Amino acid sequence: MDKNLRHHVVVIGGGFGGLTAVRALANVPVKVTLLDRRNFHLFQPLLYQVATGGLSATNISSPLREILKNQKNAQVILGEVIGFDPRHKMVQLKDFEVHYDTLIISTGASHDYFGHDEWAPLAQGLKSIEDAADIRRRILMAFELAEKQPAAEERKKLLTFVIVGAGPTGVEMAGAIAELARDTFKENFRFINPADARIVLVDAMKTVLPAYPPALCAKAHKELENLGVVVKTGMAVNQVMPDRVILKGETEEETILTRTVVWAAGVRASSLGKRLAESTGAQLDKKGCVLVQPDLTIAGHPDIFVIGDLANFKTPDGKTLPGVAPVAIQEGRYVAKIIKARISNRTRPPFQYRDRGKMATIGRTKAVADLNWIRLSGPLAWLVWLFIHLMGLVSFENRILVFFQWAWNYFSFNRHARLITEEFSK
Amino acid sequence: MDKNLRHHVVVIGGGFGGLTAVRALANVPVKVTLLDRRNFHLFQPLLYQVATGGLSATNISSPLREILKNQKNAQVILGEVIGFDPRHKMVQLKDFEVHYDTLIISTGASHDYFGHDEWAPLAQGLKSIEDAADIRRRILMAFELAEKQPAAEERKKLLTFVIVGAGPTGVEMAGAIAELARDTFKENFRFINPADARIVLVDAMKTVLPAYPPALCAKAHKELENLGVVVKTGMAVNQVMPDRVILKGETEEETILTRTVVWAAGVRASSLGKRLAESTGAQLDKKGCVLVQPDLTIAGHPDIFVIGDLANFKTPDGKTLPGVAPVAIQEGRYVAKIIKARISNRTRPPFQYRDRGKMATIGRTKAVADLNWIRLSGPLAWLVWLFIHLMGLVSFENRILVFFQWAWNYFSFNRHARLITEEFSK
Repeated sequence: MDKNLRHHVVVIGGGFGGLTAVRALANVPVKVTLLDRRNFHLFQPLLYQVATGGLSATNISSPLREILKNQKNAQVILGEVIGFDPRHKMVQLKDFEVHYDTLIISTGASHDYFGHDEWAPLAQGLKSIEDAADIRRRILMAFELAEKQPAAEERKKLLTFVIVGAGPTGVEMAGAIAELARDTFKENFRFINPADARIVLVDAMKTVLPAYPPALCAKAHKELENLGVVVKTGMAVNQVMPDRVILKGETEEETILTRTVVWAAGVRASSLGKRLAESTGAQLDKKGCVLVQPDLTIAGHPDIFVIGDLANFKTPDGKTLPGVAPVAIQEGRYVAKIIKARISNRTRPPFQYRDRGKMATIGRTKAVADLNWIRLSGPLAWLVWLFIHLMGLVSFENRILVFFQWAWNYFSFNRHARLITEEFSK
Repeated sequence: MDKNLRHHVVVIGGGFGGLTAVRALANVPVKVTLLDRRNFHLFQPLLYQVATGGLSATNISSPLREILKNQKNAQVILGEVIGFDPRHKMVQLKDFEVHYDTLIISTGASHDYFGHDEWAPLAQGLKSIEDAADIRRRILMAFELAEKQPAAEERKKLLTFVIVGAGPTGVEMAGAIAELARDTFKENFRFINPADARIVLVDAMKTVLPAYPPALCAKAHKELENLGVVVKTGMAVNQVMPDRVILKGETEEETILTRTVVWAAGVRASSLGKRLAESTGAQLDKKGCVLVQPDLTIAGHPDIFVIGDLANFKTPDGKTLPGVAPVAIQEGRYVAKIIKARISNRTRPPFQYRDRGKMATIGRTKAVADLNWIRLSGPLAWLVWLFIHLMGLVSFENRILVFFQWAWNYFSFNRHARLITEEFSK
């Protein structure tokens, strides 16, 4: 590394936003340090396929050091940030400190139990590869236990799967579990019929994929039902217990007996948002996301940027940008441009998001896509989804591996990555 | 499943021996139940590649239900066997019992700490996919910690890796870690030179690969040294501590300062051997392996077979068969033939092992193979090794995936599956 590069950009978090910023700074005369707790970049949009046995974790992960090995102005340090000292421009890690000239924080967000953190052990959320292995274990174990369960009532509980939250992740999980039960497990069991499994998708909102245009919501709803998924919208989760979930609608209440609950609802910002607020006075929204200026810095701290899911960026018409990968990626690129401009004493206009649309997949040949200029559903939307996600993977090797496995899974109806592994210590 | 099949064969353990027996019984008029603690068959000979980031765990695993889905006389039950009741012909699991007419036990063996089980947390052995993830985490974390370690002495400890046991697994591990450090990690770090890593391979025997012909041992020894591995044969491990290993030779003693020890020595039979001995009076050898009759049954119990690594089978010239996959596979086939013969009241000659040779790989284009009629080393031995191991994988999909990744790793010097995952709870 060139020791003469004096301006030091520290990036916290190697997700979509942070990694994009680091790479966009490749030819800018600064020194870049990427801090992350994990040694790999994770392609989160495909994590549900790891949780349902279609792909292995390595297929959607790339080592950060490998990605950045040829970027000479960048270094990677594995470590957990625990605080900030903006007066001395220091980032505090567990066992050491790092000085920055410019700081980019992109540590993301996770799901939220709406004040009921006691549900967490019963209703696993999906954010890390450990979470995915855990959900996979729970789903597969439910079928294994059902196979040797003589009591019909308990068997029914084991074969009922409740997915809470009908955003893209919830819809994708529900569709994938339905296909696992109906197609992949065909002939796999001798005592149960895995196709008897009941998959229930719950959301307090009135429709599935509430952020999508009504026609696509209806389409997704219908496709889910065709797969055998029971869709319960307009019902909020009122209680999660080891063998049941209690739902509450406007007037009715319903109890679903189940042994497996997957949580795909709510948004809670990374706890570093709170640390940042404490040390800089930055404002947080209800979810703990950091309110940022039009240039993605925090008020009074032009040297601290917050991007990705951790940032709450309000567009000129007052809307908050959604927590999706394209927003984080564009923010990462924007911040790199600002830093480059500042070094040569130029200025840049405020950040502007170009919304190229959104998409969610439901199952084989089934997806919905709203590309703003056109709305697609069915096989064409599905092919667009496949292509976009394949190209989103960082390494060429992973693109080939995922492509081959998708083709294999498509023609064989098989899902190979069905290992039940031991629990991770938490 | 045909309910009229009266003879019930219960197979414990879905490794090479057990799975082969189950499949070989496909067209025999019996009902077969395969009991395993895990839901997948693991191709153990490639496990070291998972431990060193070359392959992912799913690439070398196949779900047992998937393998057997079209074998209508077979069923799989996930469960842990805890004992036997040979008088009532029952196998006891944690929460239920299974009745057998014929029992095949093939639960294998693991490494052994020679009476020093307290070393286990410091010197991880390699038997399960969790072990492999754990070793991968330890190796990768050592490099990560070294990268941010300012003290030269501690950095040197972190960059020293000791592998205990110079059989095939130890040799393969040592070679793979050396290649990881020298090739894969090139340009990955900014402060350390990963090629400075010291890999030490230790064995109490006088040579590496002691079961091989002396010429191949010498060849393997030389290839390891070419890769930069320090080979210390004739040295036994006397003590393992958090930051050092103390070795003892005939006259000398040596201390190696290290933070990472991988254990690939010793053999200890599955604890079910002891349970079997308690309930049937079967004889065990020093390692806990079950002494079997010429037809692989245990004395006085013609309905109980023990095969694979758990069995101690003495050839007519008094030698014990080694604990390798080909022995287990041939034993599995033999037992299936015996069961078939018995049902039609025929008899079979005693089991006879056909030794087709043995092989171990050291690194790219480096391997040794003793095929009995010919001895190979170098690129040709390596290609034979690649072919045999590829064909050993159960599913066609995995063959393609592994082949592609080997080709990729070969040409790019990369190893993609380098995730540091959280610890499993044990």
